[in-house]
Amino acid sequence: MKVSIVGATGYGGAELIRIINNHSSLSLESVHSSSKTGQAISTEYPHFMHKIEKILMEINPEQMAKTSDLVFLATPNGISKGLTPFFKDLNIKVIDLSGDLRLKDREQYQKWYKKEAASEEVTGSAVYGLSEWNQENISQADIIANPGCFPTASLLGLAPIIKNFTSIEDIIIDAKTGVSGAGRSLSSASHFSEVNENLKIYKVHEHQHTPEIEQQIKAWNKNSPNISFSAHLIPMTRGIMATMYVKADRVTSSREIWDLYKEAYEGKPFVRLHPPGSFPCTKHVYGSNFCDIGVAYDERTNRITIVSVIDNLMKGAAGQAVQNANLMFGFNESDGLLNLPLFP
Amino acid sequence: MKVSIVGATGYGGAELIRIINNHSSLSLESVHSSSKTGQAISTEYPHFMHKIEKILMEINPEQMAKTSDLVFLATPNGISKGLTPFFKDLNIKVIDLSGDLRLKDREQYQKWYKKEAASEEVTGSAVYGLSEWNQENISQADIIANPGCFPTASLLGLAPIIKNFTSIEDIIIDAKTGVSGAGRSLSSASHFSEVNENLKIYKVHEHQHTPEIEQQIKAWNKNSPNISFSAHLIPMTRGIMATMYVKADRVTSSREIWDLYKEAYEGKPFVRLHPPGSFPCTKHVYGSNFCDIGVAYDERTNRITIVSVIDNLMKGAAGQAVQNANLMFGFNESDGLLNLPLFP
Amino acid sequence: MKVSIVGATGYGGAELIRIINNHSSLSLESVHSSSKTGQAISTEYPHFMHKIEKILMEINPEQMAKTSDLVFLATPNGISKGLTPFFKDLNIKVIDLSGDLRLKDREQYQKWYKKEAASEEVTGSAVYGLSEWNQENISQADIIANPGCFPTASLLGLAPIIKNFTSIEDIIIDAKTGVSGAGRSLSSASHFSEVNENLKIYKVHEHQHTPEIEQQIKAWNKNSPNISFSAHLIPMTRGIMATMYVKADRVTSSREIWDLYKEAYEGKPFVRLHPPGSFPCTKHVYGSNFCDIGVAYDERTNRITIVSVIDNLMKGAAGQAVQNANLMFGFNESDGLLNLPLFP
Amino acid sequence: MKVSIVGATGYGGAELIRIINNHSSLSLESVHSSSKTGQAISTEYPHFMHKIEKILMEINPEQMAKTSDLVFLATPNGISKGLTPFFKDLNIKVIDLSGDLRLKDREQYQKWYKKEAASEEVTGSAVYGLSEWNQENISQADIIANPGCFPTASLLGLAPIIKNFTSIEDIIIDAKTGVSGAGRSLSSASHFSEVNENLKIYKVHEHQHTPEIEQQIKAWNKNSPNISFSAHLIPMTRGIMATMYVKADRVTSSREIWDLYKEAYEGKPFVRLHPPGSFPCTKHVYGSNFCDIGVAYDERTNRITIVSVIDNLMKGAAGQAVQNANLMFGFNESDGLLNLPLFP
Repeated sequence: MKVSIVGATGYGGAELIRIINNHSSLSLESVHSSSKTGQAISTEYPHFMHKIEKILMEINPEQMAKTSDLVFLATPNGISKGLTPFFKDLNIKVIDLSGDLRLKDREQYQKWYKKEAASEEVTGSAVYGLSEWNQENISQADIIANPGCFPTASLLGLAPIIKNFTSIEDIIIDAKTGVSGAGRSLSSASHFSEVNENLKIYKVHEHQHTPEIEQQIKAWNKNSPNISFSAHLIPMTRGIMATMYVKADRVTSSREIWDLYKEAYEGKPFVRLHPPGSFPCTKHVYGSNFCDIGVAYDERTNRITIVSVIDNLMKGAAGQAVQNANLMFGFNESDGLLNLPLFP
Repeated sequence: MKVSIVGATGYGGAELIRIINNHSSLSLESVHSSSKTGQAISTEYPHFMHKIEKILMEINPEQMAKTSDLVFLATPNGISKGLTPFFKDLNIKVIDLSGDLRLKDREQYQKWYKKEAASEEVTGSAVYGLSEWNQENISQADIIANPGCFPTASLLGLAPIIKNFTSIEDIIIDAKTGVSGAGRSLSSASHFSEVNENLKIYKVHEHQHTPEIEQQIKAWNKNSPNISFSAHLIPMTRGIMATMYVKADRVTSSREIWDLYKEAYEGKPFVRLHPPGSFPCTKHVYGSNFCDIGVAYDERTNRITIVSVIDNLMKGAAGQAVQNANLMFGFNESDGLLNLPLFP
Repeated sequence: MKVSIVGATGYGGAELIRIINNHSSLSLESVHSSSKTGQAISTEYPHFMHKIEKILMEINPEQMAKTSDLVFLATPNGISKGLTPFFKDLNIKVIDLSGDLRLKDREQYQKWYKKEAASEEVTGSAVYGLSEWNQENISQADIIANPGCFPTASLLGLAPIIKNFTSIEDIIIDAKTGVSGAGRSLSSASHFSEVNENLKIYKVHEHQHTPEIEQQIKAWNKNSPNISFSAHLIPMTRGIMATMYVKADRVTSSREIWDLYKEAYEGKPFVRLHPPGSFPCTKHVYGSNFCDIGVAYDERTNRITIVSVIDNLMKGAAGQAVQNANLMFGFNESDGLLNLPLFP
Repeated sequence: MKVSIVGATGYGGAELIRIINNHSSLSLESVHSSSKTGQAISTEYPHFMHKIEKILMEINPEQMAKTSDLVFLATPNGISKGLTPFFKDLNIKVIDLSGDLRLKDREQYQKWYKKEAASEEVTGSAVYGLSEWNQENISQADIIANPGCFPTASLLGLAPIIKNFTSIEDIIIDAKTGVSGAGRSLSSASHFSEVNENLKIYKVHEHQHTPEIEQQIKAWNKNSPNISFSAHLIPMTRGIMATMYVKADRVTSSREIWDLYKEAYEGKPFVRLHPPGSFPCTKHVYGSNFCDIGVAYDERTNRITIVSVIDNLMKGAAGQAVQNANLMFGFNESDGLLNLPLFP
């Protein structure tokens, strides 16, 4: 199967290249960029030197349709909603890593993204690519809306609770991310001297991943409440941790909660549950597609603490995108994604 | 006024030396250590080279009583409860930076610290040194229990809410700290290769600062609930951020909340309130005694988000200790503490 | 004495504000910027919130001459050569932190900086502000060319050798700097995800500080050779280390070398010599104006290794600038600069 | 082929496990440790959770000989010299990652390592495993002395010069390493708060990798001089850069030098030469087995600057060890080592 990547100069695009290079059935046909056309990808990313010899090409859907079976759109928000219809008409499969196709409610998109939403036809045909919980739909999809990094960590962490408790009153998600999540575009928020030895909170009550999480938990359980979601910038490059606080609607126990997770993720190759009383750190999944989860119940407050970690560029972006490609094409779900995390 | 420092080889002790060197009325009489007696402090800490020429001495309360007016105990938990009675009998004032004298309920100490508690006599005579909210008692105290780093950030952030809302249902404190909070003792939790590019949660539902925070908020408002408190280790050296989520018991507004804080901290030299919609980062207080606070109200969830940052070694330890010394001796509250934060 | 700062939104400017706030005889009259006129400096730098209440003003030399006795030019290379003549004519003293006025040979400036050089009149009247070695000229100067960060560390480390050995064959300076040296302007070279967990060399054989170092060592000793100079970017914010390798022209000993340094820097408040066999690290001078030096001789190769560290924003920029102001005005050389380093 | 790892709880051991998990022909038979016998490796390293299910076993050469074809000794210096004779007698192949078997001159070992040297029989039978330059001997060896991290970066960078210039006068190697090179044992030199935002030089003129480099360059060219070698600790986890300064014995050009490297490493899968004028950074090889090299000649000083980067745990330890295993067993040299670097 041949694949093309649009937005190959961004971090998500580069990570796709790295993964596909390891894949037994996907081969990289072409890389595309709106700004660096004609340049070698290894000039932009010298870590590919001598190994990936592609030249960045224009984004020309008709040309791409002739050579590729699948296109990954690793573009900023606001781009793929315009590109997707072309690929749809040309019958190439699309996996969109941006936020454009995730929200079914166009008003919500406009409110949180402060941009014009994609057409209903496009969002209507896009399948939400949370691999572990939407496998069947993904396997039949032509267009995948690949989940956001925070929603991936949060939803994998919340699912067993949302699906097993009738009514959850309160959900607080205190999320923390490495700086690569902000991408390769220059900004003072990613300027080394302002980020290093520093800890920031940003987009308080305004983060666009909030409605994406709410859309899914309300689909799972219509009693789900609105969430409080905060994002913090950690002075590290990769990794997301979502620390979640959920008020149980009845008395439970750490063991009962743990058993729910154990059952929910039995046999899932990329979700790993920590033993009771133990919690993951982001480095346990560094460079890999794993989502590691730890849970505990606190009797003093009748509250459950759930900790979910991923590599934001892998399970939070390119890794899950390839996992979804595997599901779409009927490959082994883990193909290209078997590398162990890098530690230390 | 002459002061002595016990535990001068730890980070809290070193920070006390740095501050006192800047103080107009306190002078450093002697530095003490249980393990490095006879060694120059500048050998242990070469950044003091040629500037601080003290030799580390034994901990001999009788000798210290002859030369010093005040002793700072910058010792690990479990030490000062044994030392304080000696200093008390010798009529030297004591400021204890450890957790030994903070909890009035000895059972709580034993439950959370898993150590034998100090005697009731000692804890009974210790005044909790949260400078901004206990100024009068501090000014008349002989023994100060200097607050913990997380409680300082949390309580300064919660006070205006706790004192102005009748009944708060839920309080979640998601705390994040730099690694210097773990001290200078070697441990794998402070080993560079395991901490750098990593993010950990620790002591989930078990952190010993939990009862310290609850003791104070229940003293302020007996309706205060038990709190959910989590601590995270951030790959940076200095800084604490407490992100707090509080469910209001009535509809309010960001402006009403902000005004409560404005009024509460008017005229306080070390608490700085961010303008509405703006939040502090830890680097804004780096190396200084400030506590910077930002607040916002979210109508979607009727929840208030409060962000409070301090330098854990300054306002979270040595800085507040000197602030308390200033209050005890009637000096200007800011003496020795006027340096602006180091940025970047 | 009243001072103004041009380029107050850069890191060097912010550091000047921090130091002057600590100074007994200098007071900050005004802050100037070409791009952010009308904005509060505390909006640009919230760590100054409530403490520094200045508004950024236009750069108007005539106005500044009416109110200030001294202006610091903390501007990028290429700006001060145009501004200095105005201040000169208006009889305000100038301390220029940029590279514009340092090289006496205009062709050298043009070759290494790839910009038009300042007029001979301007460079001719500027005194090179290496405080420890040019004190007398500085004290009588009206215009100071404040040394570069690498030249400061390198020259303080080389001086005792250059002045005491007749003929030095080889000088290699392997310099390392924190990222704040690249300033606050956005660039991919300062983008967090590209710098963190990374180590780069840059401007190999082309760094503009090369001729500045050579100009001074040849002034000290005309037999001095051309130097090999390399700069490396370290994933940290502050600090410079120059590791220097010098081939001795005769057999010597670690002790003889050490004695040269001891004598050279006796009584100098900001240069601290490590004991034989011991070497400084950058954190020993963090946030301070110190230059710490260690030296050793290797019999196997007849080569001397000299290690010199500074805080690039302090002794490498704003700190030395204030030290020079102190010398110019006859203040205590250490005024405003007595803070101990921040550790850890 | 079945392999065992002794010292599996160290970083080198963990990295071997990660690589072997990716290898088509090597399978991990057993992991051994002197201190954590009976514990699961995934308890020690939770990033292996659910994927590597081995229990740490005693170091019993006779047992190991029954099940394994090759043993990797990833032990501290001073251990493998005692273990190797057992494995030799039992006819298991050994790849030793420590420094014990590298120096042919036992007095040199004792002088620099300050430990008793291995017997002449053992060092005599060990082949130095610098894969690119000793391929033939490695392919016939039973015992490999795997090169040190600094020697690997330095020697790959120096080889084309040493072998092509008759007489090199001066060689200065200014080496920089990430902290993982110091291993997993706790020490204040690896304590986060002392390393982060800091830059240190260590073992000036005394680093035990000095004689290892000299032994090899003198074997290549008997006119090679003693080297000046310095090691610096960089606040990052992985990566080594050797910046090398070599005085040419005749006038040359950047192009002539570059051509030497081009020719020397043509067809070598793991050495990548940067284009003229361009230099590598450590992140270009992160997590991979590459050694990236850049070179330039400076006419002003007749000196060549060579920059060589590796991942210290990969090409500097476990990666090269597996590369050597591939050569010993006649596998494809790149088996298990084809992953692209992780960036960012």
